[in-house]
Amino acid sequence: MGLRVTEVLWQEKTPYQELAVYRTAQYGLMLVLDQAVQTTDADEFFYHEMLVHVPLVAHPDPRRVLIIGGGDGGTLREALKHPSVERVDMVEIDLRVVEAGRRFFPALSASFADPRANLLIADGIRHVAEAPPGEYDCILVDSTDPVGPAVGLFAADFYRNCHRALGEQGILTVQSESPLANRDLIREVGGRLAGIFPSSGVYLGPVPTYPTGLWSYSYGSKGADISRFDPERADRLSTRYYNAAVHTGACRLPPFLLENG
Amino acid sequence: MGLRVTEVLWQEKTPYQELAVYRTAQYGLMLVLDQAVQTTDADEFFYHEMLVHVPLVAHPDPRRVLIIGGGDGGTLREALKHPSVERVDMVEIDLRVVEAGRRFFPALSASFADPRANLLIADGIRHVAEAPPGEYDCILVDSTDPVGPAVGLFAADFYRNCHRALGEQGILTVQSESPLANRDLIREVGGRLAGIFPSSGVYLGPVPTYPTGLWSYSYGSKGADISRFDPERADRLSTRYYNAAVHTGACRLPPFLLENG
Repeated sequence: MGLRVTEVLWQEKTPYQELAVYRTAQYGLMLVLDQAVQTTDADEFFYHEMLVHVPLVAHPDPRRVLIIGGGDGGTLREALKHPSVERVDMVEIDLRVVEAGRRFFPALSASFADPRANLLIADGIRHVAEAPPGEYDCILVDSTDPVGPAVGLFAADFYRNCHRALGEQGILTVQSESPLANRDLIREVGGRLAGIFPSSGVYLGPVPTYPTGLWSYSYGSKGADISRFDPERADRLSTRYYNAAVHTGACRLPPFLLENG
Repeated sequence: MGLRVTEVLWQEKTPYQELAVYRTAQYGLMLVLDQAVQTTDADEFFYHEMLVHVPLVAHPDPRRVLIIGGGDGGTLREALKHPSVERVDMVEIDLRVVEAGRRFFPALSASFADPRANLLIADGIRHVAEAPPGEYDCILVDSTDPVGPAVGLFAADFYRNCHRALGEQGILTVQSESPLANRDLIREVGGRLAGIFPSSGVYLGPVPTYPTGLWSYSYGSKGADISRFDPERADRLSTRYYNAAVHTGACRLPPFLLENG
Protein backbone atom coordinates (compact mmCIF):
# COMPACT_ATOMS: atom_id res chain seq x y z
CA MET A 1 0.00 0.00 0.00
CA GLY A 2 2.90 2.33 -0.58
CA LEU A 3 4.71 2.75 2.72
CA ARG A 4 8.47 2.53 2.25
CA VAL A 5 11.02 2.94 5.06
CA THR A 6 14.17 4.65 3.75
CA GLU A 7 16.12 4.94 7.03
CA VAL A 8 15.98 3.55 10.57
CA LEU A 9 16.68 6.55 12.82
CA TRP A 10 16.08 4.95 16.21
CA GLN A 11 15.25 1.56 17.62
CA GLU A 12 15.16 0.43 21.25
CA LYS A 13 13.35 -1.73 23.75
CA THR A 14 11.97 0.54 26.48
CA PRO A 15 10.71 -0.90 29.80
CA TYR A 16 7.21 -0.94 28.25
CA GLN A 17 7.46 -1.58 24.53
CA GLU A 18 9.57 -1.58 21.39
CA LEU A 19 10.10 1.92 20.09
CA ALA A 20 11.32 2.84 16.61
CA VAL A 21 11.57 5.98 14.50
CA TYR A 22 11.80 5.55 10.73
CA ARG A 23 12.19 7.88 7.82
CA THR A 24 9.62 6.99 5.14
CA ALA A 25 9.40 7.92 1.48
CA GLN A 26 5.80 9.14 1.63
CA TYR A 27 5.00 10.29 5.17
CA GLY A 28 8.19 11.82 6.57
CA LEU A 29 9.32 10.59 10.00
CA MET A 30 7.26 7.86 11.64
CA LEU A 31 7.02 6.79 15.29
CA VAL A 32 6.33 3.07 15.74
CA LEU A 33 5.51 1.31 19.05
CA ASP A 34 5.35 -2.51 19.16
CA GLN A 35 5.26 -2.60 15.34
CA ALA A 36 2.21 -0.32 15.15
CA VAL A 37 2.36 3.13 13.51
CA GLN A 38 1.61 5.86 16.07
CA THR A 39 2.47 9.12 14.36
CA THR A 40 3.87 10.37 11.06
CA ASP A 41 4.80 13.91 10.08
CA ALA A 42 2.44 13.86 7.11
CA ASP A 43 -0.81 12.60 8.58
CA GLU A 44 -0.67 12.97 12.38
CA PHE A 45 -3.05 15.94 12.23
CA PHE A 46 -6.04 13.81 11.21
CA TYR A 47 -5.78 11.67 14.33
CA HIS A 48 -4.84 14.34 16.86
CA GLU A 49 -7.43 16.86 15.66
CA MET A 50 -10.30 14.34 15.68
CA LEU A 51 -9.39 12.85 19.08
CA VAL A 52 -9.24 16.30 20.71
CA HIS A 53 -11.55 18.80 19.02
CA VAL A 54 -14.76 16.78 18.81
CA PRO A 55 -15.04 16.39 22.62
CA LEU A 56 -13.51 19.76 23.53
CA VAL A 57 -15.85 21.65 21.20
CA ALA A 58 -18.82 19.54 22.40
CA HIS A 59 -18.02 20.44 26.03
CA PRO A 60 -19.58 23.82 26.95
CA ASP A 61 -16.46 25.16 28.73
CA PRO A 62 -13.42 22.85 28.89
CA ARG A 63 -10.88 24.23 31.40
CA ARG A 64 -9.08 21.21 32.86
CA VAL A 65 -8.07 18.42 30.46
CA LEU A 66 -6.39 15.09 31.17
CA ILE A 67 -4.52 13.20 28.44
CA ILE A 68 -3.58 9.55 29.05
CA GLY A 69 -0.72 8.47 26.79
CA GLY A 70 0.04 10.72 23.83
CA GLY A 71 3.77 10.89 24.58
CA ASP A 72 4.63 12.48 21.22
CA GLY A 73 2.84 15.68 22.25
CA GLY A 74 0.39 15.96 19.34
CA THR A 75 -2.76 15.53 21.42
CA LEU A 76 -1.44 18.09 23.92
CA ARG A 77 -0.73 20.56 21.11
CA GLU A 78 -4.34 20.34 19.89
CA ALA A 79 -5.86 20.60 23.40
CA LEU A 80 -3.89 23.80 24.04
CA LYS A 81 -5.50 25.43 20.98
CA HIS A 82 -8.71 25.91 22.99
CA PRO A 83 -8.64 29.34 24.65
CA SER A 84 -10.81 28.13 27.56
CA VAL A 85 -8.26 25.48 28.57
CA GLU A 86 -6.40 26.48 31.75
CA ARG A 87 -4.52 23.26 32.49
CA VAL A 88 -3.69 20.05 30.66
CA ASP A 89 -2.31 17.15 32.68
CA MET A 90 -0.63 14.63 30.42
CA VAL A 91 0.15 11.24 31.96
CA GLU A 92 2.46 9.13 29.82
CA ILE A 93 3.82 5.87 31.22
CA ASP A 94 6.90 5.69 28.99
CA LEU A 95 9.45 8.50 29.28
CA ARG A 96 11.26 7.15 26.21
CA VAL A 97 8.26 8.01 24.00
CA VAL A 98 8.36 11.60 25.23
CA GLU A 99 12.10 11.75 24.57
CA ALA A 100 11.69 10.34 21.06
CA GLY A 101 8.98 12.93 20.42
CA ARG A 102 11.21 15.79 21.60
CA ARG A 103 14.09 14.60 19.45
CA PHE A 104 12.31 13.62 16.21
CA PHE A 105 8.93 15.39 16.22
CA PRO A 106 9.57 18.96 17.40
CA ALA A 107 6.38 20.23 15.75
CA LEU A 108 4.39 18.04 18.14
CA SER A 109 6.47 18.15 21.32
CA ALA A 110 6.88 21.93 21.27
CA SER A 111 3.59 21.95 23.17
CA PHE A 112 5.36 20.72 26.34
CA ALA A 113 6.80 24.21 26.76
CA ASP A 114 3.33 25.76 27.22
CA PRO A 115 2.89 26.93 30.84
CA ARG A 116 -0.57 25.32 30.92
CA ALA A 117 0.94 21.86 30.15
CA ASN A 118 1.78 19.56 33.05
CA LEU A 119 3.63 16.39 32.06
CA LEU A 120 3.61 13.39 34.42
CA ILE A 121 5.57 10.24 33.68
CA ALA A 122 3.27 7.82 35.48
CA ASP A 123 0.62 5.11 35.14
CA GLY A 124 -2.52 6.72 33.72
CA ILE A 125 -4.81 4.03 35.13
CA ARG A 126 -3.60 4.74 38.66
CA HIS A 127 -3.67 8.51 38.08
CA VAL A 128 -7.35 8.37 37.20
CA ALA A 129 -8.16 6.01 40.08
CA GLU A 130 -6.59 8.49 42.54
CA ALA A 131 -7.86 11.72 40.95
CA PRO A 132 -10.28 13.82 43.05
CA PRO A 133 -13.92 13.49 41.91
CA GLY A 134 -14.87 16.04 39.26
CA GLU A 135 -11.24 17.07 38.69
CA TYR A 136 -11.40 17.18 34.85
CA ASP A 137 -13.71 18.51 32.15
CA CYS A 138 -12.38 16.22 29.41
CA ILE A 139 -10.28 13.04 29.52
CA LEU A 140 -8.62 11.98 26.25
CA VAL A 141 -7.15 8.49 25.97
CA ASP A 142 -4.44 8.53 23.32
CA SER A 143 -3.38 4.92 23.79
CA THR A 144 -1.66 2.22 21.76
CA ASP A 145 -3.59 -0.86 20.62
CA PRO A 146 -5.35 -2.91 23.33
CA VAL A 147 -2.38 -5.21 23.95
CA GLY A 148 0.56 -4.84 26.37
CA PRO A 149 0.62 -1.67 28.49
CA ALA A 150 -2.67 -0.35 27.08
CA VAL A 151 -5.00 -3.28 27.93
CA GLY A 152 -6.26 -1.68 31.14
CA LEU A 153 -7.20 1.51 29.24
CA PHE A 154 -10.03 -0.40 27.52
CA ALA A 155 -11.50 -1.88 30.75
CA ALA A 156 -14.78 -0.95 32.44
CA ASP A 157 -13.00 -0.24 35.76
CA PHE A 158 -10.89 2.42 34.11
CA TYR A 159 -13.96 3.98 32.44
CA ARG A 160 -15.77 4.06 35.80
CA ASN A 161 -12.83 5.89 37.37
CA CYS A 162 -12.82 8.35 34.46
CA HIS A 163 -16.54 8.97 35.05
CA ARG A 164 -15.82 9.78 38.70
CA ALA A 165 -12.88 12.03 37.82
CA LEU A 166 -15.00 14.04 35.35
CA GLY A 167 -17.03 17.12 36.25
CA GLU A 168 -20.73 17.64 35.58
CA GLN A 169 -20.66 17.97 31.79
CA GLY A 170 -17.47 15.88 31.50
CA ILE A 171 -16.56 13.89 28.39
CA LEU A 172 -14.23 10.90 28.06
CA THR A 173 -12.92 10.14 24.54
CA VAL A 174 -10.78 7.10 23.68
CA GLN A 175 -9.17 6.00 20.46
CA SER A 176 -10.97 2.74 19.63
CA GLU A 177 -9.22 1.21 16.60
CA SER A 178 -10.42 0.58 13.02
CA PRO A 179 -14.15 0.32 12.24
CA LEU A 180 -13.31 -2.15 9.47
CA ALA A 181 -10.83 -4.41 11.26
CA ASN A 182 -11.94 -4.11 14.92
CA ARG A 183 -15.72 -3.82 14.90
CA ASP A 184 -16.04 -6.23 17.83
CA LEU A 185 -13.74 -4.12 20.00
CA ILE A 186 -15.71 -0.97 19.13
CA ARG A 187 -18.93 -2.68 20.22
CA GLU A 188 -17.36 -3.90 23.47
CA VAL A 189 -16.01 -0.43 24.28
CA GLY A 190 -19.36 1.10 23.28
CA GLY A 191 -21.24 -1.32 25.54
CA ARG A 192 -18.99 -0.51 28.49
CA LEU A 193 -19.29 3.26 28.00
CA ALA A 194 -23.08 3.02 27.56
CA GLY A 195 -23.30 1.19 30.89
CA ILE A 196 -21.47 3.99 32.70
CA PHE A 197 -22.25 7.30 30.94
CA PRO A 198 -25.72 8.77 30.26
CA SER A 199 -24.67 9.56 26.67
CA SER A 200 -22.14 7.64 24.58
CA GLY A 201 -21.25 6.81 20.99
CA VAL A 202 -18.58 6.49 18.35
CA TYR A 203 -17.33 8.76 15.57
CA LEU A 204 -14.99 8.15 12.63
CA GLY A 205 -12.21 9.95 10.82
CA PRO A 206 -9.47 9.15 8.32
CA VAL A 207 -5.90 8.35 9.42
CA PRO A 208 -4.02 7.32 6.26
CA THR A 209 -1.15 5.42 7.93
CA TYR A 210 -3.27 3.47 10.43
CA PRO A 211 -4.50 0.00 9.37
CA THR A 212 -7.49 0.36 6.94
CA GLY A 213 -6.99 4.17 6.85
CA LEU A 214 -10.21 4.82 8.77
CA TRP A 215 -10.26 5.20 12.57
CA SER A 216 -12.84 5.26 15.35
CA TYR A 217 -13.08 7.31 18.53
CA SER A 218 -15.53 6.31 21.26
CA TYR A 219 -16.88 8.62 23.92
CA GLY A 220 -18.94 8.76 27.05
CA SER A 221 -20.46 12.08 28.12
CA LYS A 222 -22.04 13.19 31.39
CA GLY A 223 -23.71 16.05 29.49
CA ALA A 224 -25.12 16.32 25.99
CA ASP A 225 -24.14 14.02 23.15
CA ILE A 226 -21.27 15.29 21.00
CA SER A 227 -23.44 16.14 17.98
CA ARG A 228 -24.61 19.23 19.91
CA PHE A 229 -21.88 21.82 19.56
CA ASP A 230 -21.26 25.44 18.66
CA PRO A 231 -20.11 25.54 15.01
CA GLU A 232 -18.53 28.96 15.48
CA ARG A 233 -16.26 27.61 18.22
CA ALA A 234 -15.31 24.73 15.91
CA ASP A 235 -14.48 27.03 13.01
CA ARG A 236 -12.42 29.47 15.09
CA LEU A 237 -9.79 26.76 15.73
CA SER A 238 -6.69 26.80 13.56
CA THR A 239 -6.69 23.25 12.12
CA ARG A 240 -5.74 21.33 9.00
CA TYR A 241 -8.65 18.86 8.83
CA TYR A 242 -11.22 19.39 11.58
CA ASN A 243 -13.99 21.97 11.19
CA ALA A 244 -17.67 22.29 12.04
CA ALA A 245 -18.79 20.42 8.90
CA VAL A 246 -16.37 17.57 9.63
CA HIS A 247 -17.65 17.44 13.23
CA THR A 248 -21.24 17.12 12.00
CA GLY A 249 -20.31 14.48 9.45
CA ALA A 250 -18.32 12.40 11.93
CA CYS A 251 -21.08 12.24 14.53
CA ARG A 252 -23.65 10.19 12.65
CA LEU A 253 -23.00 6.46 12.79
CA PRO A 254 -22.63 5.04 9.28
CA PRO A 255 -24.93 2.02 8.80
CA PHE A 256 -22.08 -0.41 8.01
CA LEU A 257 -20.97 -0.25 11.65
CA LEU A 258 -24.26 -1.84 12.69
CA GLU A 259 -23.88 -4.79 10.33
CA ASN A 260 -22.87 -8.20 11.63
CA GLY A 261 -19.46 -9.72 10.95
CA MET B 1 -0.23 -2.01 5.80
CA GLY B 2 -2.03 -5.36 6.09
CA LEU B 3 -3.15 -6.35 2.60
CA ARG B 4 -2.38 -9.99 1.92
CA VAL B 5 -3.29 -11.81 -1.32
CA THR B 6 -4.21 -15.43 -0.60
CA GLU B 7 -5.20 -16.55 -4.12
CA VAL B 8 -4.92 -15.30 -7.69
CA LEU B 9 -8.32 -15.96 -9.25
CA TRP B 10 -7.83 -14.26 -12.62
CA GLN B 11 -5.08 -12.51 -14.51
CA GLU B 12 -5.05 -11.35 -18.15
CA LYS B 13 -3.90 -8.63 -20.47
CA THR B 14 -6.98 -7.05 -22.05
CA PRO B 15 -6.69 -4.77 -25.11
CA TYR B 16 -6.59 -1.81 -22.70
CA GLN B 17 -4.90 -2.85 -19.46
CA GLU B 18 -3.78 -5.62 -17.15
CA LEU B 19 -6.68 -7.09 -15.25
CA ALA B 20 -6.44 -9.26 -12.14
CA VAL B 21 -8.80 -10.59 -9.50
CA TYR B 22 -7.28 -11.63 -6.18
CA ARG B 23 -8.66 -13.15 -3.02
CA THR B 24 -7.33 -11.20 -0.02
CA ALA B 25 -7.19 -12.06 3.66
CA GLN B 26 -8.80 -8.82 4.86
CA TYR B 27 -10.97 -7.40 2.07
CA GLY B 28 -12.50 -10.37 0.23
CA LEU B 29 -12.16 -10.37 -3.56
CA MET B 30 -10.24 -7.52 -5.16
CA LEU B 31 -10.28 -6.20 -8.74
CA VAL B 32 -6.95 -4.75 -9.87
CA LEU B 33 -6.29 -2.83 -13.13
CA ASP B 34 -2.70 -1.98 -14.11
CA GLN B 35 -1.54 -2.80 -10.56
CA ALA B 36 -4.01 -0.36 -8.97
CA VAL B 37 -6.80 -1.55 -6.65
CA GLN B 38 -10.22 -0.70 -8.15
CA THR B 39 -12.74 -2.53 -6.02
CA THR B 40 -12.85 -4.90 -3.05
CA ASP B 41 -15.83 -6.66 -1.55
CA ALA B 42 -15.20 -5.15 1.88
CA ASP B 43 -14.77 -1.46 1.12
CA GLU B 44 -16.20 -0.73 -2.35
CA PHE B 45 -19.25 0.98 -0.82
CA PHE B 46 -17.25 3.96 0.48
CA TYR B 47 -16.07 4.86 -3.01
CA HIS B 48 -19.22 4.10 -4.98
CA GLU B 49 -21.56 5.82 -2.52
CA MET B 50 -19.47 8.99 -2.33
CA LEU B 51 -18.93 9.24 -6.09
CA VAL B 52 -22.65 8.88 -6.81
CA HIS B 53 -24.80 10.21 -3.99
CA VAL B 54 -23.17 13.57 -3.36
CA PRO B 55 -23.92 14.85 -6.91
CA LEU B 56 -27.22 13.00 -7.38
CA VAL B 57 -28.61 14.32 -4.09
CA ALA B 58 -27.26 17.82 -4.87
CA HIS B 59 -29.05 17.79 -8.25
CA PRO B 60 -32.69 18.87 -7.84
CA ASP B 61 -34.13 16.09 -10.04
CA PRO B 62 -31.65 13.66 -11.63
CA ARG B 63 -33.40 11.63 -14.32
CA ARG B 64 -30.76 10.81 -16.94
CA VAL B 65 -27.32 9.76 -15.69
CA LEU B 66 -24.15 8.94 -17.63
CA ILE B 67 -21.38 6.84 -16.10
CA ILE B 68 -17.98 6.75 -17.80
CA GLY B 69 -16.02 3.65 -16.79
CA GLY B 70 -17.20 1.80 -13.71
CA GLY B 71 -17.18 -1.61 -15.41
CA ASP B 72 -17.65 -3.53 -12.17
CA GLY B 73 -21.19 -2.14 -11.85
CA GLY B 74 -20.90 -0.58 -8.37
CA THR B 75 -21.43 3.01 -9.51
CA LEU B 76 -24.43 1.91 -11.58
CA ARG B 77 -25.92 0.10 -8.58
CA GLU B 78 -25.73 3.28 -6.48
CA ALA B 79 -27.15 5.54 -9.23
CA LEU B 80 -30.16 3.23 -9.61
CA LYS B 81 -31.02 3.71 -5.91
CA HIS B 82 -32.39 7.18 -6.76
CA PRO B 83 -36.12 6.88 -7.48
CA SER B 84 -36.04 9.89 -9.85
CA VAL B 85 -33.53 8.19 -12.17
CA GLU B 86 -35.17 7.03 -15.40
CA ARG B 87 -32.12 5.98 -17.40
CA VAL B 88 -28.44 5.34 -16.72
CA ASP B 89 -26.11 5.04 -19.70
CA MET B 90 -22.89 3.36 -18.69
CA VAL B 91 -20.01 3.61 -21.15
CA GLU B 92 -17.14 1.26 -20.35
CA ILE B 93 -14.28 0.91 -22.81
CA ASP B 94 -13.14 -2.55 -21.68
CA LEU B 95 -15.63 -5.42 -21.99
CA ARG B 96 -13.31 -7.65 -19.99
CA VAL B 97 -13.79 -5.49 -16.88
CA VAL B 98 -17.55 -5.93 -17.17
CA GLU B 99 -17.10 -9.66 -17.59
CA ALA B 100 -14.81 -9.88 -14.56
CA GLY B 101 -17.40 -7.94 -12.59
CA ARG B 102 -20.22 -10.30 -13.59
CA ARG B 103 -18.16 -13.34 -12.68
CA PHE B 104 -16.47 -12.26 -9.45
CA PHE B 105 -18.52 -9.34 -8.06
CA PRO B 106 -22.19 -10.32 -8.46
CA ALA B 107 -23.30 -7.92 -5.71
CA LEU B 108 -22.10 -5.03 -7.89
CA SER B 109 -22.89 -6.25 -11.41
CA ALA B 110 -26.44 -7.35 -10.55
CA SER B 111 -27.34 -3.75 -11.38
CA PHE B 112 -26.88 -4.44 -15.13
CA ALA B 113 -30.19 -6.36 -15.06
CA ASP B 114 -32.16 -3.22 -14.12
CA PRO B 115 -34.36 -2.12 -17.09
CA ARG B 116 -33.22 1.50 -16.59
CA ALA B 117 -29.56 0.49 -17.15
CA ASN B 118 -28.08 0.82 -20.62
CA LEU B 119 -24.56 -0.63 -21.00
CA LEU B 120 -22.38 0.53 -23.91
CA ILE B 121 -18.94 -0.95 -24.55
CA ALA B 122 -17.39 2.12 -26.14
CA ASP B 123 -15.02 5.04 -25.75
CA GLY B 124 -16.48 7.38 -23.13
CA ILE B 125 -14.58 10.41 -24.44
CA ARG B 126 -16.12 9.98 -27.87
CA HIS B 127 -19.55 9.23 -26.41
CA VAL B 128 -19.57 12.56 -24.57
CA ALA B 129 -18.22 14.44 -27.60
CA GLU B 130 -21.11 13.11 -29.70
CA ALA B 131 -23.88 13.35 -27.09
CA PRO B 132 -26.73 15.79 -27.83
CA PRO B 133 -26.48 19.03 -25.81
CA GLY B 134 -28.28 18.85 -22.46
CA GLU B 135 -28.70 15.06 -22.72
CA TYR B 136 -27.74 14.24 -19.10
CA ASP B 137 -28.47 15.54 -15.60
CA CYS B 138 -25.39 14.01 -14.03
CA ILE B 139 -22.16 12.61 -15.49
CA LEU B 140 -20.04 10.41 -13.19
CA VAL B 141 -16.47 9.59 -14.21
CA ASP B 142 -15.47 6.35 -12.50
CA SER B 143 -12.06 6.11 -14.12
CA THR B 144 -8.73 4.47 -13.38
CA ASP B 145 -5.67 6.58 -12.51
CA PRO B 146 -4.66 9.31 -15.01
CA VAL B 147 -2.34 7.04 -16.99
CA GLY B 148 -3.05 4.77 -19.96
CA PRO B 149 -6.64 4.66 -21.22
CA ALA B 150 -7.89 7.19 -18.65
CA VAL B 151 -5.60 10.16 -19.48
CA GLY B 152 -8.18 11.85 -21.71
CA LEU B 153 -10.76 11.70 -18.92
CA PHE B 154 -8.78 14.32 -16.98
CA ALA B 155 -8.44 16.78 -19.90
CA ALA B 156 -10.15 20.17 -20.30
CA ASP B 157 -11.57 19.14 -23.72
CA PHE B 158 -13.42 16.25 -22.14
CA TYR B 159 -14.76 18.48 -19.34
CA ARG B 160 -15.98 21.02 -21.92
CA ASN B 161 -17.85 18.27 -23.77
CA CYS B 162 -19.37 17.11 -20.48
CA HIS B 163 -20.53 20.66 -19.80
CA ARG B 164 -22.25 20.73 -23.19
CA ALA B 165 -23.84 17.30 -22.67
CA LEU B 166 -25.28 18.35 -19.30
CA GLY B 167 -28.69 19.96 -18.80
CA GLU B 168 -29.41 23.22 -17.01
CA GLN B 169 -28.61 22.16 -13.43
CA GLY B 170 -26.22 19.43 -14.57
CA ILE B 171 -23.34 18.15 -12.44
CA LEU B 172 -20.13 16.40 -13.52
CA THR B 173 -18.27 14.43 -10.84
CA VAL B 174 -14.91 12.74 -11.38
CA GLN B 175 -12.77 10.61 -9.10
CA SER B 176 -9.63 12.71 -8.62
CA GLU B 177 -7.12 10.59 -6.67
CA SER B 178 -5.62 10.96 -3.17
CA PRO B 179 -5.56 14.38 -1.45
CA LEU B 180 -2.34 13.35 0.28
CA ALA B 181 -0.42 11.83 -2.64
CA ASN B 182 -1.86 13.74 -5.63
CA ARG B 183 -2.55 17.27 -4.48
CA ASP B 184 -1.11 18.73 -7.69
CA LEU B 185 -3.50 16.69 -9.84
CA ILE B 186 -6.46 17.77 -7.71
CA ARG B 187 -5.48 21.42 -8.20
CA GLU B 188 -5.08 20.94 -11.96
CA VAL B 189 -8.46 19.23 -12.27
CA GLY B 190 -10.00 21.89 -10.02
CA GLY B 191 -8.55 24.67 -12.15
CA ARG B 192 -9.91 23.11 -15.35
CA LEU B 193 -13.38 22.59 -13.88
CA ALA B 194 -13.44 26.14 -12.46
CA GLY B 195 -12.68 27.49 -15.92
CA ILE B 196 -15.67 25.69 -17.44
CA PHE B 197 -18.41 25.39 -14.79
CA PRO B 198 -19.97 28.27 -12.80
CA SER B 199 -19.60 26.23 -9.60
CA SER B 200 -16.92 23.66 -8.83
CA GLY B 201 -15.01 22.09 -5.97
CA VAL B 202 -13.66 18.96 -4.37
CA TYR B 203 -14.89 16.68 -1.59
CA LEU B 204 -13.22 13.85 0.31
CA GLY B 205 -14.13 10.43 1.64
CA PRO B 206 -12.36 7.34 3.00
CA VAL B 207 -11.52 4.37 0.75
CA PRO B 208 -9.42 1.99 2.90
CA THR B 209 -7.80 0.02 0.07
CA TYR B 210 -6.86 3.00 -2.11
CA PRO B 211 -3.41 4.56 -1.63
CA THR B 212 -3.37 6.71 1.57
CA GLY B 213 -6.91 5.54 2.43
CA LEU B 214 -8.44 8.95 1.73
CA TRP B 215 -9.89 9.86 -1.68
CA SER B 216 -11.01 12.99 -3.52
CA TYR B 217 -13.90 13.63 -5.88
CA SER B 218 -13.98 16.80 -7.97
CA TYR B 219 -17.09 18.32 -9.48
CA GLY B 220 -18.34 21.02 -11.78
CA SER B 221 -21.96 22.14 -11.50
CA LYS B 222 -24.14 24.24 -13.82
CA GLY B 223 -26.50 24.86 -10.88
CA ALA B 224 -25.89 25.30 -7.18
CA ASP B 225 -22.80 24.08 -5.39
CA ILE B 226 -23.10 20.60 -3.91
CA SER B 227 -23.27 21.76 -0.29
CA ARG B 228 -26.89 22.78 -0.98
CA PHE B 229 -28.97 19.63 -0.82
CA ASP B 230 -32.10 18.17 0.72
CA PRO B 231 -31.02 16.16 3.81
CA GLU B 232 -34.23 14.13 3.75
CA ARG B 233 -33.49 12.88 0.24
CA ALA B 234 -29.98 11.94 1.40
CA ASP B 235 -31.25 10.02 4.42
CA ARG B 236 -33.95 8.12 2.50
CA LEU B 237 -31.27 6.26 0.49
CA SER B 238 -30.34 2.77 1.63
CA THR B 239 -26.57 3.08 2.11
CA ARG B 240 -23.75 1.76 4.27
CA TYR B 241 -21.67 4.93 4.66
CA TYR B 242 -23.23 7.97 2.97
CA ASN B 243 -25.89 10.03 4.72
CA ALA B 244 -26.84 13.70 5.08
CA ALA B 245 -24.29 14.33 7.85
CA VAL B 246 -21.51 12.72 5.80
CA HIS B 247 -22.54 14.85 2.78
CA THR B 248 -22.29 18.03 4.88
CA GLY B 249 -18.94 16.99 6.33
CA ALA B 250 -17.47 16.09 2.96
CA CYS B 251 -18.34 19.40 1.30
CA ARG B 252 -16.14 21.75 3.27
CA LEU B 253 -12.57 21.86 2.05
CA PRO B 254 -10.16 20.88 4.84
CA PRO B 255 -7.40 23.51 5.20
CA PHE B 256 -4.56 21.05 4.55
CA LEU B 257 -5.61 20.85 0.88
CA LEU B 258 -4.76 24.52 0.46
CA GLU B 259 -1.23 24.13 1.82
CA ASN B 260 1.75 24.06 -0.49
CA GLY B 261 3.77 20.95 -1.16
